[in-house]
Amino acid sequence: MDSLSAIRIVLIDTTHPGNIGATARAMKVMGLKQLVLVRPRHFPDATATAMASGAADLLTDAIVVDSLDDAIADCRLVLGTSARPRSLEWPMLASREAAVHLHQVVQAGQSAAQTAILFGTESVGLSNEQLQRCQYRIEIPANPDYSSLNLAQAVQVISYELRQAFLTEQKPDQPPQSHASHALADDRSVESFLERFHQMIVELDILNPAQPKMLMQRIRRLFMRARLETSEVSILQGIISAVLAGQHRDK
Amino acid sequence: MDSLSAIRIVLIDTTHPGNIGATARAMKVMGLKQLVLVRPRHFPDATATAMASGAADLLTDAIVVDSLDDAIADCRLVLGTSARPRSLEWPMLASREAAVHLHQVVQAGQSAAQTAILFGTESVGLSNEQLQRCQYRIEIPANPDYSSLNLAQAVQVISYELRQAFLTEQKPDQPPQSHASHALADDRSVESFLERFHQMIVELDILNPAQPKMLMQRIRRLFMRARLETSEVSILQGIISAVLAGQHRDK
Repeated sequence: MDSLSAIRIVLIDTTHPGNIGATARAMKVMGLKQLVLVRPRHFPDATATAMASGAADLLTDAIVVDSLDDAIADCRLVLGTSARPRSLEWPMLASREAAVHLHQVVQAGQSAAQTAILFGTESVGLSNEQLQRCQYRIEIPANPDYSSLNLAQAVQVISYELRQAFLTEQKPDQPPQSHASHALADDRSVESFLERFHQMIVELDILNPAQPKMLMQRIRRLFMRARLETSEVSILQGIISAVLAGQHRDK
Repeated sequence: MDSLSAIRIVLIDTTHPGNIGATARAMKVMGLKQLVLVRPRHFPDATATAMASGAADLLTDAIVVDSLDDAIADCRLVLGTSARPRSLEWPMLASREAAVHLHQVVQAGQSAAQTAILFGTESVGLSNEQLQRCQYRIEIPANPDYSSLNLAQAVQVISYELRQAFLTEQKPDQPPQSHASHALADDRSVESFLERFHQMIVELDILNPAQPKMLMQRIRRLFMRARLETSEVSILQGIISAVLAGQHRDK
């Protein structure tokens, strides 16, 4: 995940130091490192350090500059986050597409391709001039009635998408939610379990004489869907044995 | 995007009211509305309101309860966010898959299928007992060296993924793994079933005195994974009743 370190997060004219700290944390949990602050109002600051939690090292390493020029001079791709379209429409990428695109650019670059993502001041975001330093505007799809993400939240979402884009490349086919397959019960033991389950409900005398097969069909479907593991079959078999023992004592 | 309102965000034992406010904002920008607070330490609170920014209405509408039972009794699918695997592994979905899955469940249900996502206390997250009320654990892929997202940031990422899932057109070759969600048993009836199951195995005298809780944990995990339907719970309750009747005759 080293290539995430080629991505620079740039905060411009940040008013609240808490947002800078929360940004550092949002970055670090997703594996980003480079933080550049253009004219932060209060920095360094105890509130920033507190909000950074375990990411205070990113604050220590953060570079503070006076102008956006200094922040992005070496960058080959600059994206600016902005909720609102501008009077002059700017090429736009949604957050997910932007992350995928950034990933492609970084992968393609032989040397570390510096890329930057800009975030403007809390109240009004990026100015037109600042946005025009970007190849793309990034839009985070949001509620049209209320689309104003907190600054650090926007950093979190973008950082998360970046990690997803970089992860997806490395693990093409992660099957979701799979058991370790050695743990799954084999067909033979599942069938054996279902036979004994059937035996149990016959002895418990709870079958519907009009539709005797329906109950076991539903039971079967339930347990098939559960993808039983060998240990679970053992447990269930033990319960059935206890029930049958009780029934046999009774008769 | 109305169906996003079928999704309930549940914060349990939240320490810092600022996180509650930031959560409300994170939700509203993504179109979510339902917020339930289980034993918030300080609420209502001026800090929460301030951090909520334009989402103070979600705080006003938030429901405060004493127990997790009350927060999710009517929910048919409950997911819990947790960074760390547990000693007894619980079915896991990464954040993106979880959002896609929730979307499918909500789409499949004709009436509003209540689903909930649980977030634990800031310091340690969800307890084992709380996680075991969930069909799935959600994991947000993060930096293995530092994976501790701020609570409201985790809500932001999940909410963002939910909006993304609801925005994305459902692909025609979507694997049919979801139930019609109106058929899913709600938390209240699943808990009632598991209590009676426990009662049954106590009376069958098959608990391991050295590890009395282990068997029910595994049983619980099995049935959570099975995603029980209301008809199946009825069937299983009927079987338990017959077993208990047999046991009581025996004594």
